[in-house]
Amino acid sequence: MVAILDADDAAEFLGPLPETQVAEALDDVTPETAAAVLREFPADEQADLLGELRKDRAERILSAMDPAEAREVRALRAYADDVAGGVMVTEHLALSAASTVGEVVATLRDRADEVEDLDVQYVYLVDAAERLVGVLRLRDLLLARAARPATDLMIPDPLRVLDGAGVDELADFFEEHAFVGVPVVDERDRLLGVVHRGAVDEALRERADRDRRRSQGLLEDELRSMPLVRRAGGRLTWLSLNVVLNVVAASVIAAFEDTLQRVIALAVFLPIISDMSGCSGNQAVAVSMRELSLGLVRPTEALRVWGQEVTVGLLNGLALGVLVAVGGWLWQGNPWFGAVVGGALALNTVVAVSLGGCVPLVLKRLGLDPAIGSGPILTTVTDMCGFFLVLGLATLALPRIV
Amino acid sequence: MVAILDADDAAEFLGPLPETQVAEALDDVTPETAAAVLREFPADEQADLLGELRKDRAERILSAMDPAEAREVRALRAYADDVAGGVMVTEHLALSAASTVGEVVATLRDRADEVEDLDVQYVYLVDAAERLVGVLRLRDLLLARAARPATDLMIPDPLRVLDGAGVDELADFFEEHAFVGVPVVDERDRLLGVVHRGAVDEALRERADRDRRRSQGLLEDELRSMPLVRRAGGRLTWLSLNVVLNVVAASVIAAFEDTLQRVIALAVFLPIISDMSGCSGNQAVAVSMRELSLGLVRPTEALRVWGQEVTVGLLNGLALGVLVAVGGWLWQGNPWFGAVVGGALALNTVVAVSLGGCVPLVLKRLGLDPAIGSGPILTTVTDMCGFFLVLGLATLALPRIV
Repeated sequence: MVAILDADDAAEFLGPLPETQVAEALDDVTPETAAAVLREFPADEQADLLGELRKDRAERILSAMDPAEAREVRALRAYADDVAGGVMVTEHLALSAASTVGEVVATLRDRADEVEDLDVQYVYLVDAAERLVGVLRLRDLLLARAARPATDLMIPDPLRVLDGAGVDELADFFEEHAFVGVPVVDERDRLLGVVHRGAVDEALRERADRDRRRSQGLLEDELRSMPLVRRAGGRLTWLSLNVVLNVVAASVIAAFEDTLQRVIALAVFLPIISDMSGCSGNQAVAVSMRELSLGLVRPTEALRVWGQEVTVGLLNGLALGVLVAVGGWLWQGNPWFGAVVGGALALNTVVAVSLGGCVPLVLKRLGLDPAIGSGPILTTVTDMCGFFLVLGLATLALPRIV
Repeated sequence: MVAILDADDAAEFLGPLPETQVAEALDDVTPETAAAVLREFPADEQADLLGELRKDRAERILSAMDPAEAREVRALRAYADDVAGGVMVTEHLALSAASTVGEVVATLRDRADEVEDLDVQYVYLVDAAERLVGVLRLRDLLLARAARPATDLMIPDPLRVLDGAGVDELADFFEEHAFVGVPVVDERDRLLGVVHRGAVDEALRERADRDRRRSQGLLEDELRSMPLVRRAGGRLTWLSLNVVLNVVAASVIAAFEDTLQRVIALAVFLPIISDMSGCSGNQAVAVSMRELSLGLVRPTEALRVWGQEVTVGLLNGLALGVLVAVGGWLWQGNPWFGAVVGGALALNTVVAVSLGGCVPLVLKRLGLDPAIGSGPILTTVTDMCGFFLVLGLATLALPRIV
């Protein structure tokens, strides 16, 4: 379909689609058509899209592009997605710091089309070595006489970020400063591009989405239009690890076969304990992840978090435990049976929220990714502990519940 | 602490904190101090912050505010968080459409401080009835002669949104148009404010975060600084529902007590089947939620989604089933035992991904919230089905596995 539209229309049609789908479309046409369509995207999106393609295919499209543009895109591809160089736009207006206000306005007039396309709000002033000297705001130009040196109006030595600055740093920057964009420089202070506030928001959102998918063992960008083997394989790796962890946890049950044989009704409560502890623990994980991302808790404060979770765990554990205990008592007609299953659930709820609250902090402190590791660790440990509590308490109370 | 800072510093200090924490700080000071601190926030944030307070407390702070400002904030509070009126800023420059370019520039010069604070990019032209007539861009003003009527330069009849437009509609708008902001009008076309692209991104991100927390039975904004009873209560409601659903699912086990009594080793596999089916099903839920939010699948396409999930389920079910079957065989020294537990896991994986892929679409089609309902429905049904498969197959194969 891309082949029968002209490049401009094709880019407009493809623009709102997810990157993987645009890349697929680019994969289906000649390198020349792909290069023509790519031209209609900003340089940073060109780099992202080429990154989605096979390496040899991306090279062929780059060869079909204008050499100067191809060079720029190659430079952008060297940046990770989550640093300033990866989210900046390279299209910006940089003029000589030796200009007058009149010369700047004349340049804007000459390049009116470009100004329009870029939705320019700032003009950057650079010295002969392309180092950033100052920033001019359009509204200041509007209010000044033409003969004044541009350096009179500029914000001198403006705030800037290094091309390697991470998106968290950029988010902090935009939280602190009410700017629409910030200039990006390299280590020699040469102006490379501009990061816009919206691009940082989007990068953060994409990262959060990716983290969430990775925490469930999905490909970062899984869509059902992807090849079957890739989708199934991505999910399977994580599922296989989970089977192994599950078997480890369930081996606790095997150790108590005698007790279970004598009170078979306990088997009904094992999956209940496992599932409920998982729910309680994951609630605590979610609150810790939120507080970490808002900067309201530091990885060293596990003890404080534990104190705050344990009270919630005691309250909710008591409530759930009583509910299950009464159910178990009525079903088996034996209060001791109810006490065993209810008590195990109550105790394990405390264990689950304690672990759930602290594991993300501990993983973060160890430099590991809490979004990925927290779930499997939590589930395995709370399952083992829950099975041990039900069957252990039952073994102690065996004379009374058989 | 807020009480000992001046209002400006206090607002700067509080600005980056989550709304609930700022609201708590405002709750701790006199209504007069709170009103003075609030003044330093934009009107839309004032409305959001007052919304976090108890109603009588918010009223007392509103009474301590400048009457005109209080009226504006009251009007903003009437809007939901996820419509244009709720995310717009009311601070903007609206000038008479009868102005000349020179008059507009003179006004900008007079109100330079305000222009600075608002980071103005556009000036709106309105008629005598405050209806939106056109938009002026600063860069166009910069390039025009002072005597020209402003209407010559303006973009006439500019794109606008109604105050009741939802954030999804706004997101579509900004996806389609490369604007920084869009004017918001009421039903009589009077200009009310401006929605910025960044505010829409933030509203979408907040909504996604809230949905995720609600899907785990958390308060939308739970932080550990909140009162214990509120936190515990919020989580408990959802946990109690889950206990009941879990008991319903586990009742399948009770129905097969005889089989379980004779092959007690099966009890080890019940929690494994339950957990693994939950994992596989939730992966499919996550992909459906992503495709729904990207607009790549419609709620009526459940059949296509089912077809795409069932193949993944067959592949992964086979792999996981073989893994578990071999484990079961080696452990019990009985290939039939392995076949029962492995076969049940394989079949239930297909069930889980089929349900996980389709349930979000079906809920969406029924007008229910797929983020909240999908998890509990999926877990309960796959648990019941999984327990039935393990114990049902075992009952059929009983002579060979005892």
